[in-house]
Amino acid sequence: MGNRLHFEDFTAGQLYSLGAHRITAEEIIDFAREFDPQPQHLDPEAAKASILGGLAASGWHLCALAMRMIVDGLLGRTVSMGSPGVDDVQWRRPVYAGDDLRLDAEVLETRPSSRADRGYVRFRFTMSRVRGGERERVMLFMSSNIIGREKENA
Amino acid sequence: MGNRLHFEDFTAGQLYSLGAHRITAEEIIDFAREFDPQPQHLDPEAAKASILGGLAASGWHLCALAMRMIVDGLLGRTVSMGSPGVDDVQWRRPVYAGDDLRLDAEVLETRPSSRADRGYVRFRFTMSRVRGGERERVMLFMSSNIIGREKENA
Repeated sequence: MGNRLHFEDFTAGQLYSLGAHRITAEEIIDFAREFDPQPQHLDPEAAKASILGGLAASGWHLCALAMRMIVDGLLGRTVSMGSPGVDDVQWRRPVYAGDDLRLDAEVLETRPSSRADRGYVRFRFTMSRVRGGERERVMLFMSSNIIGREKENA
Repeated sequence: MGNRLHFEDFTAGQLYSLGAHRITAEEIIDFAREFDPQPQHLDPEAAKASILGGLAASGWHLCALAMRMIVDGLLGRTVSMGSPGVDDVQWRRPVYAGDDLRLDAEVLETRPSSRADRGYVRFRFTMSRVRGGERERVMLFMSSNIIGREKENA
């Protein structure tokens, strides 16, 4: 665990760029078929007639893609001990096939636990769509993560 | 749309049983490989050594399974116009392969929109594990859903 990030490595205000992903129609449909079989996520023709105006990703698919970027970009190199939950998940804009997505994180707060071996780090995760250099926020949520302390502090 | 549920069909205090699902190790691993590749969700042996004590589903997998039960049990027969988000997602207990899951919903509040063709219905969704007749809550969240009104009221 020598080079992994511990609770002590996090400070309020830190910013992380966690990854980028171009979402495809095939991914949108595969997720929807299993977890959110509504016409606007399943069928490009039916989706044109829906309030979203085209085939759009399930909001839960965006959360799952965010988690993948969080693991690949941050938790995979962190002494992560799980999360009790997330709050304030906002689906701001429909995400369409071909959209270029990015995920960023901000550390909002750090707080030691009453248990000496761990602490809580509160993050805001923001997914954006990038188009011609401009970024538009499409999804946000906050989470508290339980992160192990360095042995010498535990 | 004759037999579908509209905004007027919902009232605070209504309860719905939305479905049941026995989760398998294969499903847990498939989801984790794509969206949450952490050892406690991927590898039964590594999971035994983790804080969860065994192969356990990603919290986001539970959300996605809940959404499937919500679509199959409720939204598929409702004039659903999407959701701006969810809040207070609580992952209360680890969910292991073989667990029998159920999803229930309670209507917390209904509120007409300023737009005459729709209203907001606020739900609490509760996923439970059933073991020998006893139920234990494993995951909860609340969401606001936009639901179409009957034409004669719009």
